[in-house]
Amino acid sequence: MSARRDRVVEVMRAGQDAFGRALEECDGGGRFTPHRWSRPGGGGGEARILEDGRVFERAGVNVSAVYGDEAPASIAAEHGVDPAVGFFATGLSTVVHPRNPHVPSFHANFRYFEMGDQAWWFGGGADLTPAYGYAEDAAHFHRTLKDYCDGYGPAFYPEAKTACDEYFYLPHRRETRGVGGIFFDGLRPDGPDGWDRGLRLAARGIETLAAAYLPIVRRRTDQPYGDRERQWQLYRRGRYVEFNLVYDRGTRFGLQTGGNIEAILMSLPPLASWAFDVQPEPGTPEAEMRDNFLTPRDWASPAR
Amino acid sequence: MSARRDRVVEVMRAGQDAFGRALEECDGGGRFTPHRWSRPGGGGGEARILEDGRVFERAGVNVSAVYGDEAPASIAAEHGVDPAVGFFATGLSTVVHPRNPHVPSFHANFRYFEMGDQAWWFGGGADLTPAYGYAEDAAHFHRTLKDYCDGYGPAFYPEAKTACDEYFYLPHRRETRGVGGIFFDGLRPDGPDGWDRGLRLAARGIETLAAAYLPIVRRRTDQPYGDRERQWQLYRRGRYVEFNLVYDRGTRFGLQTGGNIEAILMSLPPLASWAFDVQPEPGTPEAEMRDNFLTPRDWASPAR
Repeated sequence: MSARRDRVVEVMRAGQDAFGRALEECDGGGRFTPHRWSRPGGGGGEARILEDGRVFERAGVNVSAVYGDEAPASIAAEHGVDPAVGFFATGLSTVVHPRNPHVPSFHANFRYFEMGDQAWWFGGGADLTPAYGYAEDAAHFHRTLKDYCDGYGPAFYPEAKTACDEYFYLPHRRETRGVGGIFFDGLRPDGPDGWDRGLRLAARGIETLAAAYLPIVRRRTDQPYGDRERQWQLYRRGRYVEFNLVYDRGTRFGLQTGGNIEAILMSLPPLASWAFDVQPEPGTPEAEMRDNFLTPRDWASPAR
Repeated sequence: MSARRDRVVEVMRAGQDAFGRALEECDGGGRFTPHRWSRPGGGGGEARILEDGRVFERAGVNVSAVYGDEAPASIAAEHGVDPAVGFFATGLSTVVHPRNPHVPSFHANFRYFEMGDQAWWFGGGADLTPAYGYAEDAAHFHRTLKDYCDGYGPAFYPEAKTACDEYFYLPHRRETRGVGGIFFDGLRPDGPDGWDRGLRLAARGIETLAAAYLPIVRRRTDQPYGDRERQWQLYRRGRYVEFNLVYDRGTRFGLQTGGNIEAILMSLPPLASWAFDVQPEPGTPEAEMRDNFLTPRDWASPAR
């Protein structure tokens, strides 16, 4: 239904405008540059990139809306629809890699998929990837997301929090990508107003991003750092690259299906390092990060 | 057969010693540090790493020899053997990331696999990944490898050259990783002396590495460069990371099967960058690299 499609794309675009403006304001210098692309099969998108800002070394906010006459066979079969009903998919995704190693990286994605009138669902999530662990930052992030989730229902946050911990995990390193957040997919609220509730959830989620992330940026961005902290940040960013290229479903799906490469790989950090068998000294902030921030924890609960 | 295993491991270890010494001599300062590791299921290896050398920003030469009572089911079925015959696998792999952007990165790998007395094969290869293209370097590299291959038979180089171009290819970028080299697998020479000929091929291949690569290093390592060349090198190294994490079979197999992570990922460059939609100016060396060195070419033939 075209009216639905228009409404959900409108939400994504408004979110792209608003979150991009909030990032620019927070950066106090950097500006987003738009890059439009179109998909040969139908649709396209606009990636907006800020590079070499004062606060953000690189940030991207991308919106895409693609469609086609033939739905992917496996997804159609899973939902019991004829692939010939076609498909429509739209999403907003954002990745932020700050310059100061004390400011965490941030990622969020909200998306909508439909095949004909009957099969549709929403998905979304946001997660935080610090190089240095601060419990109060993780708590602020999770509590803000929990408040948002609780507006939908009491079971939502615990489920989406666990799904995030499970998704953003590097089995080969036996560690999470960061301190998690929320992740949900295939969400299809019941009832005659189910679709509208789904859209509202997506819209509110996008509105929540600035409140979840930017207070942390402002709190940390003037914190002093030197070469040691920069080196550790670059090393931790290597893990970010490993996760995105080895495990991330969106990235791998995009690479395999000939999506817009630059928009897909805007998630990668501007600079990352690898070194052999790095073992932080016990008692250092780097060891604290490795030991206490890379396994799932209930960050939203008040500390004892 | 244990005598065979001893002989092939001896070849790998001697190669590790010799090529490591040759790299140290060429570096004129850096030294390899050994890191031994053992595999819970049986066997282990020794990674030798040189970091922050004068010429080499990072180099690794790794030898492993692993075995188990149960061969991987899919490989056993493919070769019509009972998995209960067990398996043995050994290999030497080396990756070199030089500091000077005019000096190409280098990778080589020689390996042997057996399941019982009947199923065994050799594999190997070497390839060159420059950030800046020099036709004479690519020609020297390919001609040295062709001479080595021609000692085995006239069909060997063309096959192994094509297999290398096909293997080291990034479909999502529509470009090769570098200027190629040779790649072969499942090689099982015929006749009663087939195994010995296979071993000799591996041994000579390992001996050829220094002759194929180091003259290029010596020719380029004092060539002046500045920040522009360094930035381009880091950007090209991003492609190296993309290839290894997204496509390389050895890396992906290692990550999935719980291999030694540090030894597997020693192939990654010490520092790599990503930037949005980089388009070198026409007529620059960077454009020349992109346009003329990232599609397969017959480098071994004399230029017209």
